[in-house]
Amino acid sequence: MPQVSVKNKLVESAEDVFRRRGFNGASVQDITKAAGVPKGSFYNHFESKQALAAEIVHRYARGADFSMLDGDEPALERLRKHFLAQAERTRGTGVEFGCLLGTFASDSATAGDQVLTAVRQILDTWTDAVARTIEAGQAAGEITSARPAGTLAAFLIDSFEGATLRAKTAGDQSAVAEQLDIALAALRA
Amino acid sequence: MPQVSVKNKLVESAEDVFRRRGFNGASVQDITKAAGVPKGSFYNHFESKQALAAEIVHRYARGADFSMLDGDEPALERLRKHFLAQAERTRGTGVEFGCLLGTFASDSATAGDQVLTAVRQILDTWTDAVARTIEAGQAAGEITSARPAGTLAAFLIDSFEGATLRAKTAGDQSAVAEQLDIALAALRA
Repeated sequence: MPQVSVKNKLVESAEDVFRRRGFNGASVQDITKAAGVPKGSFYNHFESKQALAAEIVHRYARGADFSMLDGDEPALERLRKHFLAQAERTRGTGVEFGCLLGTFASDSATAGDQVLTAVRQILDTWTDAVARTIEAGQAAGEITSARPAGTLAAFLIDSFEGATLRAKTAGDQSAVAEQLDIALAALRA
Repeated sequence: MPQVSVKNKLVESAEDVFRRRGFNGASVQDITKAAGVPKGSFYNHFESKQALAAEIVHRYARGADFSMLDGDEPALERLRKHFLAQAERTRGTGVEFGCLLGTFASDSATAGDQVLTAVRQILDTWTDAVARTIEAGQAAGEITSARPAGTLAAFLIDSFEGATLRAKTAGDQSAVAEQLDIALAALRA
């Protein structure tokens, strides 16, 4: 099934091309070249760069490790380990290229509705997952109940994405863990 | 002096084009078209799109209102007003296009050294200005001295930029003020 193989090659290569160049900076030719497939083959598999980018957003999210949000440890410790694992993932793919979700979020004004919808869905899914751990911490009296769990989850994620964005410009992620500690301390009951 | 006029038109138009399309999504032709000048005139005034973009980053920073960071009010209130003014500025130019500094930060991996240097300089300048107000709050016993003012300043700015990025994807800025309140509360002594 050579068609499946070409499609897989495109998907495998596109994530890195989009991460390095952003949605607007990555051309279909950049992606087919990185995949080692003929440029003309692209549209046999994807109707547009947007369609592929939306698939890449979902693929990126499936690769995130949410397992640390569950478990018996205190909620703040689970949250800390979850975000540190995300930071580790970004380090593995190049701090200077940042978080792919953040990059697509920044490009969302021009990337079109398919990409924007995918980014919103993944941000919502992530926020909901973090909020469930926060709810557990609220029930245990560990985390403040002064604000809804979803609001605190968005705060944690946004602080983390902002710190990751600064790390991208600095090419240095060393401040992210301390920023995370400040954000987590803000949640304490 | 028609040359000055063309250059001014390019600068005036480029900020909005970059904000809407990002560095990679904005072509020289997009910028000359928005400015209403011949495409060929661009390189009489700027050696590259990068050079113009770096100038736009500095121009954007000069347009920021730092006055609220000074004054007699409590430091946390000055900080709150400063960031709310930034949010208001972003609202005026379109929430869905986000903060121009954040957009260039996201594009920094591909925008080249001139843009990256400009983004770093402006982020540092902003962080230093916020840190000075935090230092005043620390001296007054209003803000925690458990961490350096510069670290807390970076935390505030990054949280704010992260919330602004989410607002960009949502096309809705209404959560930014509450996120700011959570971040500011984290600074309390």
